Amino acid sequence: MHPKHPSESLTVLTDLVLPSETNPLNNLFGGELLARMDRAASIAARRHSRRIVVTASVNHVAFNRAIPLGSVVTVEAKVSRAFTSSMEIFIDVWIEDRESGNRTKANEAIYTFVAVDEMGHPVPVPLLEPETELEKQRYDAALRRKQLSLVLAGKMKPNDATELKALFI
Amino acid sequence: MHPKHPSESLTVLTDLVLPSETNPLNNLFGGELLARMDRAASIAARRHSRRIVVTASVNHVAFNRAIPLGSVVTVEAKVSRAFTSSMEIFIDVWIEDRESGNRTKANEAIYTFVAVDEMGHPVPVPLLEPETELEKQRYDAALRRKQLSLVLAGKMKPNDATELKALFI
Amino acid sequence: MHPKHPSESLTVLTDLVLPSETNPLNNLFGGELLARMDRAASIAARRHSRRIVVTASVNHVAFNRAIPLGSVVTVEAKVSRAFTSSMEIFIDVWIEDRESGNRTKANEAIYTFVAVDEMGHPVPVPLLEPETELEKQRYDAALRRKQLSLVLAGKMKPNDATELKALFI
Amino acid sequence: MHPKHPSESLTVLTDLVLPSETNPLNNLFGGELLARMDRAASIAARRHSRRIVVTASVNHVAFNRAIPLGSVVTVEAKVSRAFTSSMEIFIDVWIEDRESGNRTKANEAIYTFVAVDEMGHPVPVPLLEPETELEKQRYDAALRRKQLSLVLAGKMKPNDATELKALFI
Amino acid sequence: MHPKHPSESLTVLTDLVLPSETNPLNNLFGGELLARMDRAASIAARRHSRRIVVTASVNHVAFNRAIPLGSVVTVEAKVSRAFTSSMEIFIDVWIEDRESGNRTKANEAIYTFVAVDEMGHPVPVPLLEPETELEKQRYDAALRRKQLSLVLAGKMKPNDATELKALFI
Amino acid sequence: MHPKHPSESLTVLTDLVLPSETNPLNNLFGGELLARMDRAASIAARRHSRRIVVTASVNHVAFNRAIPLGSVVTVEAKVSRAFTSSMEIFIDVWIEDRESGNRTKANEAIYTFVAVDEMGHPVPVPLLEPETELEKQRYDAALRRKQLSLVLAGKMKPNDATELKALFI
Repeated sequence: MHPKHPSESLTVLTDLVLPSETNPLNNLFGGELLARMDRAASIAARRHSRRIVVTASVNHVAFNRAIPLGSVVTVEAKVSRAFTSSMEIFIDVWIEDRESGNRTKANEAIYTFVAVDEMGHPVPVPLLEPETELEKQRYDAALRRKQLSLVLAGKMKPNDATELKALFI
Repeated sequence: MHPKHPSESLTVLTDLVLPSETNPLNNLFGGELLARMDRAASIAARRHSRRIVVTASVNHVAFNRAIPLGSVVTVEAKVSRAFTSSMEIFIDVWIEDRESGNRTKANEAIYTFVAVDEMGHPVPVPLLEPETELEKQRYDAALRRKQLSLVLAGKMKPNDATELKALFI
Repeated sequence: MHPKHPSESLTVLTDLVLPSETNPLNNLFGGELLARMDRAASIAARRHSRRIVVTASVNHVAFNRAIPLGSVVTVEAKVSRAFTSSMEIFIDVWIEDRESGNRTKANEAIYTFVAVDEMGHPVPVPLLEPETELEKQRYDAALRRKQLSLVLAGKMKPNDATELKALFI
Repeated sequence: MHPKHPSESLTVLTDLVLPSETNPLNNLFGGELLARMDRAASIAARRHSRRIVVTASVNHVAFNRAIPLGSVVTVEAKVSRAFTSSMEIFIDVWIEDRESGNRTKANEAIYTFVAVDEMGHPVPVPLLEPETELEKQRYDAALRRKQLSLVLAGKMKPNDATELKALFI
Repeated sequence: MHPKHPSESLTVLTDLVLPSETNPLNNLFGGELLARMDRAASIAARRHSRRIVVTASVNHVAFNRAIPLGSVVTVEAKVSRAFTSSMEIFIDVWIEDRESGNRTKANEAIYTFVAVDEMGHPVPVPLLEPETELEKQRYDAALRRKQLSLVLAGKMKPNDATELKALFI
Repeated sequence: MHPKHPSESLTVLTDLVLPSETNPLNNLFGGELLARMDRAASIAARRHSRRIVVTASVNHVAFNRAIPLGSVVTVEAKVSRAFTSSMEIFIDVWIEDRESGNRTKANEAIYTFVAVDEMGHPVPVPLLEPETELEKQRYDAALRRKQLSLVLAGKMKPNDATELKALFI
């Protein structure tokens, strides 16, 4: 399999915030945004791997900014690193002001998907070759996140998480 | 108001076909696709006008190709011509094959939106300046469609619909 | 197959406008109304043909009148003309005032459905025999709309669209 | 207020059974049918009273017959008796066979609604005058059901429920 | 099959009232509550029988108290009596005040489910042994409700409904 | 404000996996599970704080086990630690086998919520006093997770994250 570039998996999901998706403060429910990001990220993972993909984990999602009813929300998902059969997907969420047209960052999220066959068994995926500066930063950080995830799950000793350990010493 | 280009209103809504959106043949329901196209088109109209917009009419939608469950569907909407306070939006719908990654055209549709103020009264919108060849063709055809719409509604005499009449003589 | 009357396919879908179906002006979303009309029209087409039916096109829908949250909306669909395997469905949408009980016309729409077998291949449908004056007018106009649709799709020369051409000469 | 006839509140809600509304046997979920009947019945109560109405109780619903995915379901609701500010609504549910066009009874249900003002306080409603034989039977039985409901709620002594008591003695 | 206790089927469904589930008074729609109770009750019936279960009837539901938007609603369902292949499920609905944390009873409902095999044919279920005082009261009343249901359906003569008749004489 | 125990915020959301919530492998969509967990966790946060609460972050969610269509899923959420105005919520997800009644762990997740006033400004919440062994472990780990989150966001120097650093040295 040839390596692929992040731009080949770029997925854009632009949609409105509908009244049925808001909380008591009239902002988009966290849960609804999580579901939208999951759908966009799963399409990005599928575009990279051309296989059936399933959500493996949600690494970290910060809800920095409330998204009010009626907003136009753009969810952009791209593969940030590929491992044997798993892919880390980086998601940027933007909202835009109706009157000025200005776009501001509302959220970031990182999901991991696994490519599987019809029986649900993992299958290999192409490697990723980052191109832009931001893609390279996210590619490097993805390894630290993977190590962190293995350490927290007790599947890797902290001492072996060399990339991660370097942060603290 | 400065005229705008079609690319400034381009709206992309990529999403999956979920099980709850299919008909007895396991394809996307016509009604659900109409609703998705309406949401994408309303965002394009809003990006062009920066006002509240409401659906005025659906000019013609042909469902040439069934869209099966699990497909990735990309709805692309762009303003194709602006009149005093109304905007014609041209919508292209694509589906992509999971294994080959090939993208094929599934549908085209044309919606008209009107920009309104908080009371629902029409307000003026910027003109449109088409750039690409396809944008120019759609811009020209939009006038014929508007005349046809006025003729069919009995608001214009066939004789005055000069653009349209030229087709038949 | 015996011809059928429009009354045999009459389908009535009366329902409320729920909060999850409204736009920022608190009126029914265009997209939601399109979906409801599609469901009612598909039942009318199925009652006429007694086959599986799929949406082929939406010919023209004008949204003349906003439909506010909490309204009672009645969608009435009836076959207006049958061709070899396709059926044109005419849809009238009414809203009623809660206090006076008065009913006013909110929209009209025309959808085309095709009858298909289990494999999705077109199958023949009964002819339609209009009875009332309105049914006859809509039956006649359906042929002009079909010709217009073929002309716009480049499948018929304007010169051969005799019914349509008569409008302009 | 003039009395009204049941036909003045007749409400017809014809719709499909969609994939998202089915249970593991591929039949319409009981809960979804309850929700559809509630919406149709609330419109019938509103047509009789021309007021805001709220569900007061569901008297008895028997699910005699499974309704498979893809069915056309017709819910017909009519006021069967009016009391001071409450209305009993009788609901008949029909499904039709696609191939033969035959209609069979799938369910019956009885809901009670109360008419209220903007503050939620009960307001009086017009009396009901039944016309057909079936409407008269349901009108008479409505009183027994009301007494039964009061007895079961401990708000009426069994001895005072004269209509009901007559059944057992 | 060993008899079971009501506590073995206890099912708790705590969820929010979302904006898409409210009526014009901004309270939870009756139909939505009916659907939630149906889902909770079906899980209780399944826990008792460990079979596929389908809704057979809704015996009586009183909506005593409006449930406002944003409320936390707890639906608690437990088997109240088991017959040959049917189970009566008693459902208590609670809402809690956000500021004080106080819980108040909003509704009660009684549903009946039947256990079936993969073909939809009824299969036997374990008997129920009530333990608490309230469980015993509900167990006894369940027989009267079953007799009442048979009498109203014309499947039992009032004279044979000994438990029920005792109420009136 | 008196400290509270985790048991005071325990929230149980038991519900079915419906057909509209499944992916192409007929398992529950990751996005739908994220949304259910968000609703349950928000109720737990609200029970602890008795304030309006909004999702601040999703710390880590591992989808270890597919949850098939028709499953009974139990989401249990409890506050695991309270900080000034934020609360960490630990969520356990269980599925149960219909025939054996056995319950198995499907997922764990950690969400953070912030308590706010009507204007959306943070307000203080009660402290948490863990009781069981598991509650104490989760309480201790919550501090490491908070430090990790601050380090990753660049708001704390790795050297100051004493709890976290201890893992690696």
